[in-house]
Amino acid sequence: MNYVFFAVFAGILALLYSFWKTNWISKQDPGTEKMQKIGSFIAQGAMAFLKAEYKVLVVFVISIAILLSISGANSKDSHPLIALSFIIGALSSALAGFLGMRVATKANYRTTNAAKNSLNLALKVAFTGGSVMGLSVVGLGIFGLSVLFIIYENFFGFSYENSVIVLNVLSGFSLGASSIALFARVGGGIYTKAADVGADLVGKVEAGIPEDHPLNPATIADNVGDNVGDVAGMGADLFESYVGSIVGTMVIGSAFIPSLQNDGFGGLSAVILPMILAGIGIIASILGTFSVRVKEGGNPQAALNTGQVVAGVLMIVFSYFAIKFLLPESWTASSLISEETITYTANGVFYATITGLIVGILIGFITEYYTGSGKPPVAQIAKQSTTGAATNIIAGLGVGMQSTAIPVTLISAAIIFAYYFAGLYGIAISALGMLVNTGIQLAVDAYGPISDNAGGIAEMSEQPPEVRSRTDKLDAVGNTTAAIGKGFAIASAALTALALFSAFMKQANVKVINISDPNVIAGLFFGAMIPFLFSSFAIGAVGRAAMDMINEVRRQFNEIPELKAALEVLKKHQGNSSNLKGKDKEIFEAAEGKAEYAKCVEISTKAAIREMVIPGLLAIIIPLLVGFIFGPNSLGGLLAGVTATGVLLAIFQSNAGGAWDNAKKMFEGGVEVEGKIYKKGSDAHKAAVVGDTVGDPLKDTSGPSLNILIKLMSVVSLVIAPLIK
Amino acid sequence: MNYVFFAVFAGILALLYSFWKTNWISKQDPGTEKMQKIGSFIAQGAMAFLKAEYKVLVVFVISIAILLSISGANSKDSHPLIALSFIIGALSSALAGFLGMRVATKANYRTTNAAKNSLNLALKVAFTGGSVMGLSVVGLGIFGLSVLFIIYENFFGFSYENSVIVLNVLSGFSLGASSIALFARVGGGIYTKAADVGADLVGKVEAGIPEDHPLNPATIADNVGDNVGDVAGMGADLFESYVGSIVGTMVIGSAFIPSLQNDGFGGLSAVILPMILAGIGIIASILGTFSVRVKEGGNPQAALNTGQVVAGVLMIVFSYFAIKFLLPESWTASSLISEETITYTANGVFYATITGLIVGILIGFITEYYTGSGKPPVAQIAKQSTTGAATNIIAGLGVGMQSTAIPVTLISAAIIFAYYFAGLYGIAISALGMLVNTGIQLAVDAYGPISDNAGGIAEMSEQPPEVRSRTDKLDAVGNTTAAIGKGFAIASAALTALALFSAFMKQANVKVINISDPNVIAGLFFGAMIPFLFSSFAIGAVGRAAMDMINEVRRQFNEIPELKAALEVLKKHQGNSSNLKGKDKEIFEAAEGKAEYAKCVEISTKAAIREMVIPGLLAIIIPLLVGFIFGPNSLGGLLAGVTATGVLLAIFQSNAGGAWDNAKKMFEGGVEVEGKIYKKGSDAHKAAVVGDTVGDPLKDTSGPSLNILIKLMSVVSLVIAPLIK
Repeated sequence: MNYVFFAVFAGILALLYSFWKTNWISKQDPGTEKMQKIGSFIAQGAMAFLKAEYKVLVVFVISIAILLSISGANSKDSHPLIALSFIIGALSSALAGFLGMRVATKANYRTTNAAKNSLNLALKVAFTGGSVMGLSVVGLGIFGLSVLFIIYENFFGFSYENSVIVLNVLSGFSLGASSIALFARVGGGIYTKAADVGADLVGKVEAGIPEDHPLNPATIADNVGDNVGDVAGMGADLFESYVGSIVGTMVIGSAFIPSLQNDGFGGLSAVILPMILAGIGIIASILGTFSVRVKEGGNPQAALNTGQVVAGVLMIVFSYFAIKFLLPESWTASSLISEETITYTANGVFYATITGLIVGILIGFITEYYTGSGKPPVAQIAKQSTTGAATNIIAGLGVGMQSTAIPVTLISAAIIFAYYFAGLYGIAISALGMLVNTGIQLAVDAYGPISDNAGGIAEMSEQPPEVRSRTDKLDAVGNTTAAIGKGFAIASAALTALALFSAFMKQANVKVINISDPNVIAGLFFGAMIPFLFSSFAIGAVGRAAMDMINEVRRQFNEIPELKAALEVLKKHQGNSSNLKGKDKEIFEAAEGKAEYAKCVEISTKAAIREMVIPGLLAIIIPLLVGFIFGPNSLGGLLAGVTATGVLLAIFQSNAGGAWDNAKKMFEGGVEVEGKIYKKGSDAHKAAVVGDTVGDPLKDTSGPSLNILIKLMSVVSLVIAPLIK
Repeated sequence: MNYVFFAVFAGILALLYSFWKTNWISKQDPGTEKMQKIGSFIAQGAMAFLKAEYKVLVVFVISIAILLSISGANSKDSHPLIALSFIIGALSSALAGFLGMRVATKANYRTTNAAKNSLNLALKVAFTGGSVMGLSVVGLGIFGLSVLFIIYENFFGFSYENSVIVLNVLSGFSLGASSIALFARVGGGIYTKAADVGADLVGKVEAGIPEDHPLNPATIADNVGDNVGDVAGMGADLFESYVGSIVGTMVIGSAFIPSLQNDGFGGLSAVILPMILAGIGIIASILGTFSVRVKEGGNPQAALNTGQVVAGVLMIVFSYFAIKFLLPESWTASSLISEETITYTANGVFYATITGLIVGILIGFITEYYTGSGKPPVAQIAKQSTTGAATNIIAGLGVGMQSTAIPVTLISAAIIFAYYFAGLYGIAISALGMLVNTGIQLAVDAYGPISDNAGGIAEMSEQPPEVRSRTDKLDAVGNTTAAIGKGFAIASAALTALALFSAFMKQANVKVINISDPNVIAGLFFGAMIPFLFSSFAIGAVGRAAMDMINEVRRQFNEIPELKAALEVLKKHQGNSSNLKGKDKEIFEAAEGKAEYAKCVEISTKAAIREMVIPGLLAIIIPLLVGFIFGPNSLGGLLAGVTATGVLLAIFQSNAGGAWDNAKKMFEGGVEVEGKIYKKGSDAHKAAVVGDTVGDPLKDTSGPSLNILIKLMSVVSLVIAPLIK
């Protein structure tokens, strides 16, 4: 038990690190007044959204907490304390989102300013901002989990029977994290894409204004969206994956308690191992961040890679020793899915951990192949843009669908290998293996939107071209890391969901869920449909919110005379405002600050809050209904169906969207088809913009939300498992 | 046993009916020389495709037959005769396609000519053409199955043990039907959409020629495509659903042989019931076709509905008596999925049959709601076209995804109810309940493309507007029936696949497939991915073939001077060629017959044959590999995954495509958004055309092919079940 304090310590360490780095960022030069003003617009918008969102969620959290305490009081395998875990999980998730976003909205304009001096300083500011997010997430996650675990173990008293209760109560933490995550992802995703699509369609396409131009009323909302969607949303997503995979592995590990009585930890070694590994991951991640340094003229991508490789190698080495130290050489226990008894080994557990890590990395590379600029699939989409938007869309759909094949085959292989190495515990710990280094992975992920914002601020504050070119370089690296991060997020979600699924079966005391049982197959079909329905809600929400945004931007362009006049000037000069003179310049300057950004921010906020409710509730209510009405077998079928199509649709949507995005970007350099070169502004490029816009809600709203959906439904099932068995 | 001769007799009756109606059509006035010439172009193109396709398939059929006879000889539960069943099944499927297509290509221009006289005569010709297809399919299906059953029962001698062999050998017939069906559907689908997309994008959009105009070189290929895709492809699809559901039910029914020893049929009553029901369906269908009559000024839709309702009611009444006559009041037997024994009743079997029928009809209506012109989902897509192609596509994707919810819930409900009424046998027979009236359903389905062709021929042979308006009316009805037919096809495919799945488990002697077994879950994930991969092949194939077609049409427009000149004239008159005078008229007439249709037909044919091979083989090889390497449990997981996502993707793709198609059509009447009316030719309409084009390969190539994929993979598994148990 004392070793769990190592996890507590690691959690505190991560939070101290975040605190230290936040201070460092605050001390950086905030730049010109204009930068600060734009930065504060974005920060205000982001905080306004969080405030509005958390207001709704408070009601939700309290309601669920009451339900949980009532049901906990009425089950011999649960306890009202589960409500406490749930609230703390929800608060931790919200706090992680808040901390990450606060620092991101401080780091963005400081990155712009740093880019005035050098690429390296800009990278440092942006990455440090990301690392605060990363380490806040893992710090809060492991600190909350390990402290609660210690408290509950003491409260209930240690025994095998009580471990079911302890872990059920602890799973409330995961439920809290997951529910907040779903709302954050869906709400953030709707917010960012409504603003983005609106800004692009009216601003860029209709009015011909460059991206992020201050004349565009939706431009601040667009930048706020990057924060609430890509920073807070991604953070909440990984927070819950991280927590979910730890809790899932602990639950399955608790089945070993009787067999591990002689392990020197009272049989708990397999239960505490996940927390210890998570603590190791924090130390590896922090050491990794220290190695992210670019020498003058160096490559930011290489610097980020170095950080991840260092953290990865350290994690492998440390976890080998931790596993060998905690677990006995070998032990025998039930297979959990049949009456069979199998032999487990410490080496096997280590191999299973590594399996997850390797598969995660491979899927990241595959994702990069299918979505990377210039790679054959993306080049094919760019080529098919020359025959119009329809063939561009058809090509993108084909690429997205095809891109599911290898990742899913790898996930299937991971399942089989991890099980071969260490049974169901192996599958669970392989998910954890992917997520142990979340600290640095998330730092790299969150670095992307910060750089993206920095670029936007450079444009809006009219910085000289070399500043924008530096932030563009940072942003380009961010796109690649984002693709790999998404691949990782999906793969880990799949394995985490399976870990939670196995944990659910253990807690519900179900050994066999027979596919040929009609209740199971009906559940499977119904479950497989949920991700489609859920996606349609998310996509529809973006469509509706974007229409509102489009109408608002059009209204401002029509009704605000200064904007109208400036747009005429811009049209006269073909969208180029850099060399205006005389009266034109006067008109243009008169328009400054006339766009009503706040109205657009409000539209996105309201739409996101309004539209996130139904899909969020869907994810929670459906497993409850199916579980209580049709029982654990149908619920098991449902989870299998949700997970299978959820993973597939997530990969399909993320990759199709990413591929369309980069196919569009390829036109910046020119796309050659049969000797003819198509440039930016050509019809082929316009067709590619259509694809990019279609991909937006797929890759940034519905796709990533599915990751959370599958885990959330599994966690809900895990929590209610003792009640329906 | 003697009652099986009723099925033989019904099969012969259906074939006689087809023969009679074919003669009737041949006797109809073939119309003007121009009509006949165009008709013969289409017929030649269609037959050329069939010939090319069958040439490839002969090699395939012989190879598989050899493999089957070898494996049959090496298993005690099979027999080399399975190769014979396979060949006959394949031949029957090919023959059904050939007969249907031959009459369709005779009926199309005769329909055009009939439309010169009256709407009613035109309906009669088109529907009669469809009914030949419908009754050829069911006639060949039931005749082949029942004759083979009688032969095998006599050859092997009747016993419970031998019934496993008899039914395994008989399942070869289903395998033959399914494999040909897959190639026909995929090949036909690629053919038709390559031609359609090519004709639309270059002809309509780039050159501004009206649809089906003789100046467009791809126009004949487009019309041939309607025949090879929608007639032969749909026919092959339903042929295999029909055969598959009969065989699946027979296999499951054979488990009752020991319990039904006193049924008066040597225990075979539940085995022969499916064939008897199919025979009843033929009689009901024929009687139904006689009631399709329109009075002067009547509504063609109502006439078709009457035919289906009459056939449906007759089927329900007849089947009630047949079930009560064949089956005992009640009997007890194993549940097949556990050690439990359950009580079955004749009433329960009847209710299960009706369950399938009702669910099929409900799904048809839902499909109509989601894809019907003017209905809220389609109107929403039309509305979102006003902000461009991107929002049109986003809306369509959302509608397609949302449209899966109710049908899948209904399928899940059907599974639970049918099982409740009559166990696994109930699920199988509910699939049959949907398909019993395939004769008339297919007649109505095939009527659609015949009317569509008739319209094309009217345009190409420059008939007066009232002829085209009559064929348009027929065609509009065809669109609705096609939507409902597609919903039916998907629902029946889902239930048939489940029936085959249960039959597979019975033949492989597997009672439990545990989802939490890693081999099963890995199979499930991998299986769930197949429909995505398969769709990406189909979509990609259409994209590639369409590019070839586009380039060929562009080449002809550039290189053939007469065409080039005529296009200039057409451009001068804004696409309207009806009032040309003087020199313009001369130029225009000089271009007649200069378009090289045959080149476009050849491109579509070659592309379809080339591209159908890989996805077709995929469907056959994957279950073999998984079955033989990982065993029946993994294969079971695979089938569950394939079926779940296959059904979902099929519904999604078919409905999204249908909805886009009708959203585009709504612009013909004008779409009103906030008081502004958008007409044909507006930017909003152009955006809707993009959606329609994107939907084409989804709804007519990959979507419907998935129906067959899921059944084919189940049939392959069923056939190899005795070898891997």
